[in-house]
Amino acid sequence: MSLLVDTTSSGREYKVKDMSQADFGRLEIDLAEVEMPGLMACRTEYGAAQPFAGARITGSLHMTIQTAVLIETLTALGAEVRWCSCNIFSTQDHAAAAIARDSAAVFAWKGETLQEYWWCTERALDWGASGGPDLIVDDGGDATLLIHEGVKAEEEYAKSGAVPDPNATDNPEFQIVLTIIRDGLKTDPKRFHKMKERLMGVSEETTTGVKRLYQMQTAGTLLFPAINVNDSVTKSKFDNLYGCRHSLPDGLMRATDVMIAGKVAVVCGYGDVGKGCASALKQAGARVMITEIDPICALQALMEGIPVVTLEDVLGEADIFVTTTGNKDIIMVSHMRKMKNNAIVCNIGHFDNEIDMHGLENYPGVKRIVIKPQTDRWVFPDTNTGIIVLAEGRLMNLGCATGHPSFVMSCSFTNQVIAQLELWNERKSGKYEKKVYVLPKHLDEKVAALHLGKLGAKLTKLTPEQSEYISVPVEGPYKPAHYRY
Amino acid sequence: MSLLVDTTSSGREYKVKDMSQADFGRLEIDLAEVEMPGLMACRTEYGAAQPFAGARITGSLHMTIQTAVLIETLTALGAEVRWCSCNIFSTQDHAAAAIARDSAAVFAWKGETLQEYWWCTERALDWGASGGPDLIVDDGGDATLLIHEGVKAEEEYAKSGAVPDPNATDNPEFQIVLTIIRDGLKTDPKRFHKMKERLMGVSEETTTGVKRLYQMQTAGTLLFPAINVNDSVTKSKFDNLYGCRHSLPDGLMRATDVMIAGKVAVVCGYGDVGKGCASALKQAGARVMITEIDPICALQALMEGIPVVTLEDVLGEADIFVTTTGNKDIIMVSHMRKMKNNAIVCNIGHFDNEIDMHGLENYPGVKRIVIKPQTDRWVFPDTNTGIIVLAEGRLMNLGCATGHPSFVMSCSFTNQVIAQLELWNERKSGKYEKKVYVLPKHLDEKVAALHLGKLGAKLTKLTPEQSEYISVPVEGPYKPAHYRY
Amino acid sequence: MSLLVDTTSSGREYKVKDMSQADFGRLEIDLAEVEMPGLMACRTEYGAAQPFAGARITGSLHMTIQTAVLIETLTALGAEVRWCSCNIFSTQDHAAAAIARDSAAVFAWKGETLQEYWWCTERALDWGASGGPDLIVDDGGDATLLIHEGVKAEEEYAKSGAVPDPNATDNPEFQIVLTIIRDGLKTDPKRFHKMKERLMGVSEETTTGVKRLYQMQTAGTLLFPAINVNDSVTKSKFDNLYGCRHSLPDGLMRATDVMIAGKVAVVCGYGDVGKGCASALKQAGARVMITEIDPICALQALMEGIPVVTLEDVLGEADIFVTTTGNKDIIMVSHMRKMKNNAIVCNIGHFDNEIDMHGLENYPGVKRIVIKPQTDRWVFPDTNTGIIVLAEGRLMNLGCATGHPSFVMSCSFTNQVIAQLELWNERKSGKYEKKVYVLPKHLDEKVAALHLGKLGAKLTKLTPEQSEYISVPVEGPYKPAHYRY
Amino acid sequence: MSLLVDTTSSGREYKVKDMSQADFGRLEIDLAEVEMPGLMACRTEYGAAQPFAGARITGSLHMTIQTAVLIETLTALGAEVRWCSCNIFSTQDHAAAAIARDSAAVFAWKGETLQEYWWCTERALDWGASGGPDLIVDDGGDATLLIHEGVKAEEEYAKSGAVPDPNATDNPEFQIVLTIIRDGLKTDPKRFHKMKERLMGVSEETTTGVKRLYQMQTAGTLLFPAINVNDSVTKSKFDNLYGCRHSLPDGLMRATDVMIAGKVAVVCGYGDVGKGCASALKQAGARVMITEIDPICALQALMEGIPVVTLEDVLGEADIFVTTTGNKDIIMVSHMRKMKNNAIVCNIGHFDNEIDMHGLENYPGVKRIVIKPQTDRWVFPDTNTGIIVLAEGRLMNLGCATGHPSFVMSCSFTNQVIAQLELWNERKSGKYEKKVYVLPKHLDEKVAALHLGKLGAKLTKLTPEQSEYISVPVEGPYKPAHYRY
Repeated sequence: MSLLVDTTSSGREYKVKDMSQADFGRLEIDLAEVEMPGLMACRTEYGAAQPFAGARITGSLHMTIQTAVLIETLTALGAEVRWCSCNIFSTQDHAAAAIARDSAAVFAWKGETLQEYWWCTERALDWGASGGPDLIVDDGGDATLLIHEGVKAEEEYAKSGAVPDPNATDNPEFQIVLTIIRDGLKTDPKRFHKMKERLMGVSEETTTGVKRLYQMQTAGTLLFPAINVNDSVTKSKFDNLYGCRHSLPDGLMRATDVMIAGKVAVVCGYGDVGKGCASALKQAGARVMITEIDPICALQALMEGIPVVTLEDVLGEADIFVTTTGNKDIIMVSHMRKMKNNAIVCNIGHFDNEIDMHGLENYPGVKRIVIKPQTDRWVFPDTNTGIIVLAEGRLMNLGCATGHPSFVMSCSFTNQVIAQLELWNERKSGKYEKKVYVLPKHLDEKVAALHLGKLGAKLTKLTPEQSEYISVPVEGPYKPAHYRY
Repeated sequence: MSLLVDTTSSGREYKVKDMSQADFGRLEIDLAEVEMPGLMACRTEYGAAQPFAGARITGSLHMTIQTAVLIETLTALGAEVRWCSCNIFSTQDHAAAAIARDSAAVFAWKGETLQEYWWCTERALDWGASGGPDLIVDDGGDATLLIHEGVKAEEEYAKSGAVPDPNATDNPEFQIVLTIIRDGLKTDPKRFHKMKERLMGVSEETTTGVKRLYQMQTAGTLLFPAINVNDSVTKSKFDNLYGCRHSLPDGLMRATDVMIAGKVAVVCGYGDVGKGCASALKQAGARVMITEIDPICALQALMEGIPVVTLEDVLGEADIFVTTTGNKDIIMVSHMRKMKNNAIVCNIGHFDNEIDMHGLENYPGVKRIVIKPQTDRWVFPDTNTGIIVLAEGRLMNLGCATGHPSFVMSCSFTNQVIAQLELWNERKSGKYEKKVYVLPKHLDEKVAALHLGKLGAKLTKLTPEQSEYISVPVEGPYKPAHYRY
Repeated sequence: MSLLVDTTSSGREYKVKDMSQADFGRLEIDLAEVEMPGLMACRTEYGAAQPFAGARITGSLHMTIQTAVLIETLTALGAEVRWCSCNIFSTQDHAAAAIARDSAAVFAWKGETLQEYWWCTERALDWGASGGPDLIVDDGGDATLLIHEGVKAEEEYAKSGAVPDPNATDNPEFQIVLTIIRDGLKTDPKRFHKMKERLMGVSEETTTGVKRLYQMQTAGTLLFPAINVNDSVTKSKFDNLYGCRHSLPDGLMRATDVMIAGKVAVVCGYGDVGKGCASALKQAGARVMITEIDPICALQALMEGIPVVTLEDVLGEADIFVTTTGNKDIIMVSHMRKMKNNAIVCNIGHFDNEIDMHGLENYPGVKRIVIKPQTDRWVFPDTNTGIIVLAEGRLMNLGCATGHPSFVMSCSFTNQVIAQLELWNERKSGKYEKKVYVLPKHLDEKVAALHLGKLGAKLTKLTPEQSEYISVPVEGPYKPAHYRY
Repeated sequence: MSLLVDTTSSGREYKVKDMSQADFGRLEIDLAEVEMPGLMACRTEYGAAQPFAGARITGSLHMTIQTAVLIETLTALGAEVRWCSCNIFSTQDHAAAAIARDSAAVFAWKGETLQEYWWCTERALDWGASGGPDLIVDDGGDATLLIHEGVKAEEEYAKSGAVPDPNATDNPEFQIVLTIIRDGLKTDPKRFHKMKERLMGVSEETTTGVKRLYQMQTAGTLLFPAINVNDSVTKSKFDNLYGCRHSLPDGLMRATDVMIAGKVAVVCGYGDVGKGCASALKQAGARVMITEIDPICALQALMEGIPVVTLEDVLGEADIFVTTTGNKDIIMVSHMRKMKNNAIVCNIGHFDNEIDMHGLENYPGVKRIVIKPQTDRWVFPDTNTGIIVLAEGRLMNLGCATGHPSFVMSCSFTNQVIAQLELWNERKSGKYEKKVYVLPKHLDEKVAALHLGKLGAKLTKLTPEQSEYISVPVEGPYKPAHYRY
């Protein structure tokens, strides 16, 4: 690829779409700060002490306005930061520009190719001759994946001299990853080993990324400590649920202007993300149905008046299809062919493989009509009817709208800051092994507490007698670990 | 003004922002047609007969994608059409371009000045030497106003030779109207009289426009028949209510990306528009309060769990303020000064005078920061806090988003088509005098019926015995005139 | 019949179930007064002037605690009152006892036979030798019906000597009515004429009763003025809607203890009553469907996410069936046979003929199992499955629970008091002819205003400038007559 | 006490209110069976094998219709059962009668005194000379408490000869417990030791009971294995949440007939029970506020549009107060004095000490007016205003209504059956130590699955590829242990 890194006047590297949008980005960052009390409280509480002094942090996480406030919280606490997006459509170019100009090295723009995407990831991990980052903020686990695959390849190369063969996989994205690693072996066959050595740990944002980490922990292949931010209550029960309740209709409306009221909508999956989506659609006046594999989640849907169906049974009836499962192959091209004309198909769950984009793109005679970026009408030759696919099957709230709103991201990102502080502060203590950890409940409760004032809430205090009666400390934590909220 | 009218290759006049967006507009019009079954059914039912053959229709109504489908329904039925927008921010430029290129004379773009706005209105009414339109589709009543004011001025001029004095009013917009009329008197002192003579009637879309019409009817000054489309059940109880339920959060999200959940929102007015707004905000997780003058609407709010407050009592508590009253001077600059930092202030009710924009603009030392078009932060010098005003106080759903979605507009606009057909078909019968009429209930029910199939509904039929028992014809109308739905 | 009228120590007649419940009734009346601010305000405003001094009022309206507060408001204003219930199951015996002991002549108990029901109605209309009442408060129109049928029979008798033949109808209830009239002719062939002469008018509570009145008005057979209380906004849009939203689930729970969440519920009819029922069931977690004949109401349901189906299509799927139509023959025995085992069938609309009780009772081999009063399981011989019918097909909220709650009935009944005052105050003015009237909007608004304080609401006042701008008086009325709320 | 045990013709002991209600109880049990698919499926799956043959089960759990179906499931699987209620007001006398006549030894009636309550508990544990039960089904932990306190006293008595002194506590209920134990020591100083020896374990139903068990586990004083049924997802996230959402309004309506719409309601505590209550009140049209000590739960409320307040701040504003905390001293008499006239105060959380009933009863000059059983108006002498207290401060859904509906209790009780089976089947394996266990996730999922068919749900199946991709077995369990639903 012929991409060139740009450099600010102060010498910081970047690659963004349009640096002239930096002022606009700054205005929106200013607004977002008012909506992100948790992050701002971290600046107030920790800023003066500069706890991240000397720390290099690489982030691979949607380069949005909200992420900008996260980055500038990390830098306000003393960190040096390099950043890329974790989704080819999720960057907000004005946010990227403002951060690139003012605060950190950014490699991200809206509408990257997959090649460009991994080039950006590599750049964000590349701290020059002295190795990689001290800490990673990851979302979906791509930065973590690259290092793990890189180390694996370097080991094989050291042992046998073999280099990865991109043609060994038919996954086009993984071919790119292997190519990057293969090419790197020539110039520095220990690049990823050096990264691994330096790394104090990763904090991971999402269900999908966390699943990968636990799999590596189980397999014994995890190379550094990991904090599972996703399973903080103030993350998964807020961002996944309330964030999607906000951003799903936002994405639908910006992409299609369709009236949700009166429509039949099928949400595949009724986890936290699915619950948020179903709630939003129902409240907007749609008739919502869900599909589920898990009988408990299915029964929850029923208790909310939502029928549990199979996708096959409602293909010809529904107007809107949303995948939220974190699994692959949820809506196949064979399903899409049976849908109503102009049925909307979108994914807010996980990777674009929830929807069979590969099958759709390769359907004989299919015609793609770009209505506008991220909104495509695909017309089948046999029926001459079309379906509307959002964000090319990728996360539609980030591709078609601006992702989750600032306030709920403040909860998630305050967890990130706390997790990064934990990993950094304990870097020498041995507290964290090569395992996956969740934050202790008192920190989770602290994140929540930091967000109450903005909304005018007033907590009640336990009396000493009440505290004793229920054996709960006056200052918390207030619930046992297994409490489900 | 130095605005010049453009001309298509076929000789049709237009003035739009960017003709190159016509293809994009056409794609969105194609999608909208699928969502507007009532309009499409009109084409099927009446198209072949060309009932509007020979009719000239002028429209002054937000030049959106949905309106494009309305316009092309009118032309499909044989009409010739000229169009302008009824709001300086509400035009969708790609819609305007597609219509200008393909179907009708359009004078509209997003972000007109007030001068440009009235120039467009004048153009839409100007059918050349042979006078004005046969029919008007009006929204808010500006086209109707211009003719009435013009006729009044021409009468005065004929009587006394006096011309209107723009300085006689301190309303800057009305100064423009008077200037236009004054300037026209020089070239053709009977221009508006000729229009009046030709006009078969107007069909009016909104509560505000209808109110003006009834006032003129009462005063005996109405110059031609008017059909009150707003008070068709399938308009006011659908577009006003369900349209705003959809487009208020849409506008808020596109303009500010603010998280609605957790916020305190005050909706001023609990009529149909206010009910839609309050419902949307509540369902998105806001704590909603309303203000009302009418005890019945207030009691309705209470029955839905919504407190009824005065604006003064909650200024420092609320995060979002929405005006829906149809009245003026609802939120004054004295109120705005007492709001929280970054409180959002917007109007979805009527004209920009619901919010005291004049007072705000002239507040000593106030600073306006344009975040992006239609999203301004106004900072007060004394507190150094700011508020965010959407769409410069004009209809925020049209200024910041794309207005109501197609499906609900199909209900409203099918009423428009039917009203226009009534006025045209009865142009010689004397059925309609210079009064305000509502459509008969069976036509209202027909509009609803045309929209059921798209949503998969199946009506029940009265048996003859049941029909007799309740004295309601099997084919309807099903309710007495006073029924409230 | 061998029913005997009892007499209090003060000489007032009554017939109730159990006078020992009077104390309990009084306690509940005391509680209800706190919840009925409109009625209490009437006592405060009008009590001292005793406007009803000399007036005889007969009421035929569910003898509940709320009605007790109405009755005692009428007596507090000087009226003498006789009362019966308008439904064989709706009397609350403790309410009847308290009123009989303390305030008015009551003839009502829970579980009357139809014979007893009409005996009670006759007693309530029987003011002794000096004729009938001056005013009637009617609900469903049975008292009005009896007088009209009586007058008709007396006219025929005077003309031809013919007496009504109960066997001329196969409606068993109407046979009873004719029998009463026939038997009365022997003792006083001018009884109903005397009533008619004295009567100043009736105020009618319900949709069904009002429909009858308008039919008589159209036919020219209405014998006295009538005020349509049902169509006061503060009645039909409150009691019908919010009252049923409260009392439908109340009746279901008391009768069956069934979990509503997760169930499929079909509401037949989506008028005000149906809207209240559908809303309650949806919010409790049921999947709600409706049936409708009216396309406008159907489209409203769709906008709320409620599918519009035909009863036939969902017989085997639904768990709960509710009729709200005001029509007859909605759920037939042929439908019931196809329902799931233990499907619940109930009516909250109108008379018991919404459900084909006659067909059910006469179905060959059907078996009725009384679970408890008003809750019957009917088992079909062929399938050996059963359905559960509430309140024998009559209004289930009154039969199985306690009807609408006090607060919303205070709205309805304040309208009744105002209507009765109008009829009485204008008895000599000729203001009211033998027609049906609705109360003027300012009185409707007054009723609402009287209920705001209790709920802590604070109205906004129009400024004079605003008042002029929208041409609405500062003190109201605030809306045009056709406004739909 | 002079209570005498009755005996059926077959020799089984019982003490119930009225054996003549057994037929009515049986009819309602028949209906409930149709609504309790999980329990019925247990009978089908395990009945033939008679797994409980030889097992003695004592239950201390609200003796309702639903519990009757549980008891008869246990007996259908071979168990012998003795039962008491765990709340003085929660017994449904017809249910108790049916079970006493047909299936098990029952000692329970609605409206026990505390003395009677503990007499019943003692009877249920008393299996005659051969010791106590093999298994306990407990709710709130009273049966477990009695045994633990008994064993402790017997140990002290064996050691020092000292007997418990009831006057050593000022808790009147605990005085009764100590008296029972003291009196028992005289006749059999090893009674509770013998029980302890025989007991295979307890399965506990509630949050409160579970908390006690964990405290004993931590203290090392737990005498036998315990299964925490409460924290099965299909219990705490269903019964606590959806059960209360149903039964809170049911209790309010039966006790007071109050209109919930328009009222201000304060829910103390926003755990599962509080969430259910707040949701129900909000949906019924109340303005809901909550109090919380836990910032996470508080933030959840805010995201649903519910303000978080302190009780002190809203005492004069609210109409309805509900405690759901599981803690004591939530609403004190000092609070009650400041409430509005006829404010309703009730508890659905835990014991009657959530409300300061002691303080209320002993408030100088306070007057109690019994409106009807479980509905008392308490009038303060200084203000002469009153508040309405439900169920004497005990669980109002059981005291004033019929508790949770059958369907959701089927989920809870199927967990109980499975837990009892586990304890019994593993009685010799040593699998369960003297600790607290939760059921494994696959059993939790099984409980849910058993309830889907009744509601017409259709689950989706993972393909092998999907199963591998997300590392989840096709047959489940589908979620990690920490998943929160």
